[in-house]
Order: sequence, then C-alpha cells, then structure tokens
Amino acid sequence: MARQARAILKRRVILEAAASVFNEYGYGASTIAQILERAAVTRGALYFHFCSKEALARSVLAEAVTTEGVRPQPLKLQEFVDVGLLLAHRLPREPLLSASLRLSVDQNARTLFGTRWPDWIEVAARLLQAGQERGEVLPHIIPAETGRIFIGAWTGVGLVSETLDPVPELTTDIAKFFDLLLPSIAVPSVLIKLDTSPGRVPRLLRAAGEG
Amino acid sequence: MARQARAILKRRVILEAAASVFNEYGYGASTIAQILERAAVTRGALYFHFCSKEALARSVLAEAVTTEGVRPQPLKLQEFVDVGLLLAHRLPREPLLSASLRLSVDQNARTLFGTRWPDWIEVAARLLQAGQERGEVLPHIIPAETGRIFIGAWTGVGLVSETLDPVPELTTDIAKFFDLLLPSIAVPSVLIKLDTSPGRVPRLLRAAGEG
Repeated sequence: MARQARAILKRRVILEAAASVFNEYGYGASTIAQILERAAVTRGALYFHFCSKEALARSVLAEAVTTEGVRPQPLKLQEFVDVGLLLAHRLPREPLLSASLRLSVDQNARTLFGTRWPDWIEVAARLLQAGQERGEVLPHIIPAETGRIFIGAWTGVGLVSETLDPVPELTTDIAKFFDLLLPSIAVPSVLIKLDTSPGRVPRLLRAAGEG
Repeated sequence: MARQARAILKRRVILEAAASVFNEYGYGASTIAQILERAAVTRGALYFHFCSKEALARSVLAEAVTTEGVRPQPLKLQEFVDVGLLLAHRLPREPLLSASLRLSVDQNARTLFGTRWPDWIEVAARLLQAGQERGEVLPHIIPAETGRIFIGAWTGVGLVSETLDPVPELTTDIAKFFDLLLPSIAVPSVLIKLDTSPGRVPRLLRAAGEG
C-alpha cells in the first residue's frame, strides 16, 4: 500500500477507536491511553494525526454530517427520506456517528465543540426547499422550521431507541416516523410515490456499492 | 411552618440544587460540595434526606415523570396534546426535568440509573389506547409503537432545541410538531377539535392554579 494511503487508513483507525472509546466512557472520562490501546497504534502515530483529545473530538464531529449513499432521485422528498433511512441504518453500526451524537448531548463536550445539528437542519431544510420549489412539498410548510423539528425528532427517535429493551430496529422506527410525518409535508400525488420502507435501505446500499 | 412541612421543603430545595448542578457540570463531574453550596444547607441536612450522589440522581429521575397540570378532557387525544405542551413549557424552566433528561442521555449515568423513557412511553401509549377505544385514534395505529416513536421524537425536539442559537420557544415547536403528527393519528372529526396552540399552555396552568 502506498505511504499516503496507509496514513489515511491509520488516521481513520485512530478516529474510529476514539469514537468507540467516547461512546463507551463519555468524552470527559476518555483518555488518550484508552484510545491508543483500542487503535493498537503508537503514541507517535496518534500525535502525528491528532494533537490532543480535543482534536479527536473535533474530527469525530467533522465526519458526522454525511449524506453518503444518498443518490439523486426524481423526487427531492425521496432523497429526504433516503437521508433519514440510511442514517437510521448507520447510526447503530458506526461508532463515528453515535460518538458524534453523544458529544452533542454531553453538555461539557458541547460547550467545547458545539454540535452538528445546525448543519443537519440545513441539509433537511434545503431538501424540503428544493421539494417545495418543484411542487412536492405542501405550500404552507416552512422548510427551515420543519427541517428543525424533523432533525430534532429524528435524533430523539435514535437516542431513545438504543436505550430500550429490546432495542427496536431503528430503520423500522424511522420508516414509521416518516409514515406519520410525510402526509403533513408531501402533496398527495407525491406522497403515494414515496418509498419509506426499511427494505429500501439494502437496495440503496447495494446501489452505492457498499452492501 | 410545621416541622414535617419544613423537612419536605428542604428536601425539595436540595433536590433542585442537585438537578441544577447536574445540568451545569454533568453527573460525573458534579460533587456533593457543589450541591451543598447551591442548596445552602448543611452536610447533615443533605445526608438526612439523601445518602449519596447516586441517591440524589435516583430521586431526580423519580420526580421526572409527571402529568401534573393535565386535567381530564372530553377527548383523550386532547390530554395527549396537553401532556406534550405542558412539558414543553416546563422543560426549559424546571431543572428537575432537564436534569432527568441529561441523566438519561449520559451513558455513564444511564448505566447506573436507567431512564424514565419506558414510563413516558407507557403514559403516551395508554392515552393513545384510550383514544382508540373511544374512536378518536385511527384504527391502524398501534399505541405502543406510536407512543414509542412519539416519546423519542418529543425528546429530540426538546434536546436539540436548547442547543440552537437563538433557542426556539419549545412550546411553539412542540405545537408545530403536533400539527405535523396528529393528522396521521386522529380521525378527522376529532382532529379539527384538538387545540394544539401554544396559547393553550397558560390557560392550562391557570386552570391548574399554577399560573
């Protein structure tokens, strides 16, 4: 493997180890020593990429807003649904995403690093806005406002879900959440065309070459 | 003031001080010394009521599931809305409620104490179930499932809201959230009778003799 590619991979390994340690112990109680052990790298390798625990947290947050796997769709509202469904699949599976959420709900970490919710709200609002311009979204919907409520609600379904026993499958709950919400957002002729089923997720992953 | 009443009041003062310290520093970083200082009570008084920081956290959580101020309504779905609106008013104003939420999203505290979300889900599911038995709720709704998604979503709207700048008024956002959600839950003849406006909150508080 080329030196550059190896460095990128090692950076990723360290970042994922940091995310999983943050998830397990919380940001405040996590130590560089725990992260080194989990990543199985030298102290020198870690400090080559990240100068501190703070830098690791910032990089975790930087990776967390992603619409990876979401492909352009004839309907903008289908892209909106796809973002929500794919993240519901990824949140319980990817430490980077769950660590980002934990850093955001931890009041100490939040004071240091802020949250990515404003960026997520913008992603949602932009898709709703584009949908509205194409006549897919009901005219009385205010994209910034509905985007904000949607991102909050999505986050809460994800957060509460993982604490329950048994843990419900998040893609199923998010699919049901879309079914509750979309009739108030989409015009009826678009609503009937939207695919909100959890079964869409594996198809999206295959199409993106991930599954 | 009678001795018994004074003891109850002092217990409440200590509990609210603990809640506000947990809110500010997080559970892990909070100390009994900080709670004593904020409550302005002696160590003896605190230990008379609570044997440890753990006991304080458990008591904060014990107080957090409350439908105080919600009065029986001709429509069960109106009670469902009233629970959500009143809590939206109280969450930013009552340290006990926000501390309970923080303890629930803090993975270390959660491992020790669990969360109150199962109880909240039961409150929501019971109201939906009663509404369905009276023909207010659409027949295909599954109360336990919709209750779970509703509680998650409500929580997330509350959590994300307080991190934004400017902080949106939570009762307004929860009112809008109900407007998005209820058309998928209520039968149309009931839907048009439901009052989801934020202006309902002060009326409920006055009726309960709190406002």
